[in-house]
Order: sequence, then C-alpha cells, then structure tokens
Amino acid sequence: MFSQTAEYALRAVVLMAEASSEGGWDNKTLAKQAQVPTSYLAKVLQSLTRAGITRSKRGSKGGFALARPPQEITILEVVNAVDPIARIKKCPLGLRSHCEILCPMHHRLDRAMAEVENVLGNSTIAELLADTSRPKPMQETIRFLPIV
Amino acid sequence: MFSQTAEYALRAVVLMAEASSEGGWDNKTLAKQAQVPTSYLAKVLQSLTRAGITRSKRGSKGGFALARPPQEITILEVVNAVDPIARIKKCPLGLRSHCEILCPMHHRLDRAMAEVENVLGNSTIAELLADTSRPKPMQETIRFLPIV
Repeated sequence: MFSQTAEYALRAVVLMAEASSEGGWDNKTLAKQAQVPTSYLAKVLQSLTRAGITRSKRGSKGGFALARPPQEITILEVVNAVDPIARIKKCPLGLRSHCEILCPMHHRLDRAMAEVENVLGNSTIAELLADTSRPKPMQETIRFLPIV
Repeated sequence: MFSQTAEYALRAVVLMAEASSEGGWDNKTLAKQAQVPTSYLAKVLQSLTRAGITRSKRGSKGGFALARPPQEITILEVVNAVDPIARIKKCPLGLRSHCEILCPMHHRLDRAMAEVENVLGNSTIAELLADTSRPKPMQETIRFLPIV
C-alpha cells in the first residue's frame, strides 16, 4: 500500500540519519547504499528538500543531509513529502447529499487512513534507530559505507 | 491509498447489498449506478466472484448478486478480493539480518497496514447500510435504480 517512492524516501532519510557527515551524501553513494536507482533517488531527494526534510550543500564537499535532527522528523512527514497519505475529504462520487458529511463507506476508508497517519506520525526517524529490540534499519548496507 | 479498483468493488458490493433482487444485477446497469466503466466492472466482478463475495446466475433473469448476506462480508474482504492490503512479511531489501524479524522502519509501516486491516475488517457491508448517523452509501445513484 506504500509506494516504492515512499519506501525509497524512507531508506534515504534513515541512511542519512544513521551516518551523518559534515560534507553530506552524494546522490550516487546514497543510491547505492539505499539500493535505489540513481535518477529515481535524485527526484526523491528533490521532493524531500522541497518539504524541508533534507537540504543540499553546494561545493566540493557538498551533498545531501538532513535539514533537521532525526528526533524532529516523523515517518509520516517523509512519506507525505513524496507520496501523501490520501485522506478522503469529499465524496469521490461527487454525490450532493454526501458533500457535507461522508457516507459510512468512505468514512470507514478515511478512518483507516487516519490510523495510518496516527502510526506513522507517532514514530520519529530517531526512534527507529534507537529501537534495540529489532535489527537496525539498513544495517547491512550501512556496514560497508564509505563515510565522505 | 486505496486503489480505484478497491473503490469500484466497494461501490458494486454496496449497491448489490442495498438493492438485491431475485434476478441479480446485469453488469451494464450496475456499472451505470456505480459510475464505473462497464469493462472495468466486469473484471472487478470476476475477482469478487472468485473470492466468493458475489456470484453470477445464468439465464434470461441472470445477473450478479452477493453470494453471502451483507452481515457476513467485511470491507476488508472486498478490498482484499481486488487489491489486497500489502502487509510486509519480509525485508523489502532482502537483508539477511532482517529476514527473521523486521527492522523498526518496516515494522512501523507494517503496523500501519495492520491498523488498516483492523478498521476495515471490523466493518461489515451491513453495518455501512445500517449507520443512520451518515447519508446512505450510493444514495443518489440508488434512487433512480430500475429494479430488475
């Protein structure tokens, strides 16, 4: 149900949170570690930067980095930056009698989406990395990481 | 986040639950009322029939009808019949250390999907029609319905 784009964005953000460096990540290295096609990741990083989650530094030591501490970035923000959770705000059928208040069918679907927002909005990137009850995200890829 | 196919399947099932008839619905009438392209709905009905939610009756009075009472059909079943909720069973990156237990990142995404299953699995089609606190699903389309 989550798009490939959302999955890729999360991988990139988690990697940047796990191995931050002064210079930042170049797109090619990040793409390799995140197992994402380079051109695809470039677009993902554009969206993340537009949403204020990452920033790009220019220059020879330039690259991408998180714009905010991982404690201040939720999974929901990352997902919404590239492929927003689609809440149902109005009747998809355009029925006049449903324009003020959704019918039970669309209300239930919307409630399910609200639960998704709830779970993802209550998890920060920092929490994902601090959770020792499970294997570290991107663990094997990060192991071979050439820090720039 | 829910696909167009899932939305179409729900519309069709709700309509069949609202206006059942001995003969059943012909695909063309149902497509018109559900505001779904006829050929698209034919495929949706195939999937619903394969999942045991609808059945087709042959003959001059033939057509599609629910295979079970609306009390016994959940929204989740309808959605899963055409576009299953994608739970995360194994590491999408194929990381060896994550094959037994998901990392926190994929675990949170999977938990969000579990919540979706929970909301949709706890709502039957009958409940959607019995909820008087909201406008009836498909209300305006059903009003002009030529019962067969």
